Amino acid sequence: MSLSTNNFALHKKLAADTEWLVDLPLCRCLLTQDARFAWLILVPRVANLREFHEVPKDQRVQLLDEIEQASVALQQVTQAHKLNVAALGNQVPQLHIHVIARQTNDAAWPGPVWGVGTAEPYDPARLEALTQTLRHALKDAGSD
Amino acid sequence: MSLSTNNFALHKKLAADTEWLVDLPLCRCLLTQDARFAWLILVPRVANLREFHEVPKDQRVQLLDEIEQASVALQQVTQAHKLNVAALGNQVPQLHIHVIARQTNDAAWPGPVWGVGTAEPYDPARLEALTQTLRHALKDAGSD
Repeated sequence: MSLSTNNFALHKKLAADTEWLVDLPLCRCLLTQDARFAWLILVPRVANLREFHEVPKDQRVQLLDEIEQASVALQQVTQAHKLNVAALGNQVPQLHIHVIARQTNDAAWPGPVWGVGTAEPYDPARLEALTQTLRHALKDAGSD
Repeated sequence: MSLSTNNFALHKKLAADTEWLVDLPLCRCLLTQDARFAWLILVPRVANLREFHEVPKDQRVQLLDEIEQASVALQQVTQAHKLNVAALGNQVPQLHIHVIARQTNDAAWPGPVWGVGTAEPYDPARLEALTQTLRHALKDAGSD
């Protein structure tokens, strides 16, 4: 099943700052390239969406299923203390939903992660291992 | 229609920091007492919810309808440049969803609003007028 439209193109800033993980039926699921936080981004593959509430009604159940899938996978991989789910878009207008694993000893706790310090690159081997682990966890979390 | 359970009680920190606007079928809709931002908070009246993805599947369409209702009302009242929709919960564990009107000249733009400066109290007359305006807008936005 694919709900995507033909005119979707990932915003260049999102493409530059993330690693591709998987295309779910509605959203492209990305990993933010910042080793300080386990930080997924879901981008509905629908052209010209800007606000969260603009997701078409017939795709909203799917959107929440995929937010759940990303949340459960991230929780399983990181044992996060808390998840942060947010659609901000102040700097990148294309609708994207952050799903971030938060720990009580992370670099921004208890504040939000956006705008805090500078992103730290992943070690390439760690990035490769993490992307594989997350892809498996996303697959497992989507199987219900 | 009410989807609430009997055991719901608003977290005391949310109660202290907000003004009650209206109870929608699923969520209590609150206005944050900070005159710097037009800032709604939706709290599903379901006991013991902590994470966004824990909202029961049979209440998710209603949740997204109410996020849309809050978003459209806020947009209509403020002519916001952008809306921020977020479930963080790092400091208050009860699930609550922020719906915030952002302007390009607001006190935190383009960063997130949380943790920025100090909340500014509303002038009582302005607060009374704004709550009435928002209640009307919420009613109008929910009538489709």
